[in-house]
Amino acid sequence: MKTLEAQQVITSEDLLKHWQGHRALTRRLIEMFPEKDFFEFSIGGMRPFAKLVDELLAIAAPALKGIVNREAQPYTEGTEKLIFKAQYLAKWDEATEEINKYWEQLTIEDFSETFNLFGQYEFPIIQNILYFIDNEVHHRGQAYVYLRALNIEPPFFWER
Amino acid sequence: MKTLEAQQVITSEDLLKHWQGHRALTRRLIEMFPEKDFFEFSIGGMRPFAKLVDELLAIAAPALKGIVNREAQPYTEGTEKLIFKAQYLAKWDEATEEINKYWEQLTIEDFSETFNLFGQYEFPIIQNILYFIDNEVHHRGQAYVYLRALNIEPPFFWER
Repeated sequence: MKTLEAQQVITSEDLLKHWQGHRALTRRLIEMFPEKDFFEFSIGGMRPFAKLVDELLAIAAPALKGIVNREAQPYTEGTEKLIFKAQYLAKWDEATEEINKYWEQLTIEDFSETFNLFGQYEFPIIQNILYFIDNEVHHRGQAYVYLRALNIEPPFFWER
Repeated sequence: MKTLEAQQVITSEDLLKHWQGHRALTRRLIEMFPEKDFFEFSIGGMRPFAKLVDELLAIAAPALKGIVNREAQPYTEGTEKLIFKAQYLAKWDEATEEINKYWEQLTIEDFSETFNLFGQYEFPIIQNILYFIDNEVHHRGQAYVYLRALNIEPPFFWER
């Protein structure tokens, strides 16, 4: 028993909680953006926050669904055109529920298995999931700069 | 054996690799900043990248040392005044070695134990370590915007 335990450091439940904590913070940032700036504000030619959120939505629930069903669907972004922040928030909340639902179907064996995510990223599933989280933190860091540049005080990073 | 294994999803070794992969990317960003901009460029009143790297250096190796020795030293930043990027890169590489060294001393039991990091953050050690990583990804996301605003193409996020 010792040996296996000795190599593993986080539970599936805690990892979900960690991810959803990050997602709750990202949701707060969406809420804080002025409607217009959410869709238009940009620095250095980077995507406005709405486009980044399109990416986050195209990854999280669809990717987890693909993992659970072992279906390598291609990555598709912004199939549904959202034009209000409120629509993004509704989509975000739907994704939150979907993630919880699919997560329950993940077995432990799944995490170490290799899966060709979106038919493109062939890695152990744990690495894919860590990538979703990191990618969200990365783009949200970008959104923090946008808010500061707009003279809006963002929430503390450690508030989840 | 099943039960314990069934709740844990990443090995200590893989988590270190994950963190050091992120640190390698952050190092590349330090390298890419023009010397002057590393210390001075800022958007929206945020800290220049050098100050963010001061924070990352003040956390990573010192925090891990504190965890391993269970010594809740207070957080101290920029005790040594670095004035060249090359000094930061040298410090970064020292920290890389220290992190590897201290990580070896972490036992599995440590990850789930609570520790009062810097005498301020009382959490399970795994949460503290995930925080170090997230905090680095967050601030590096900020640095990506700085580079773009400086018309410099940053490395791909997934290059580690």
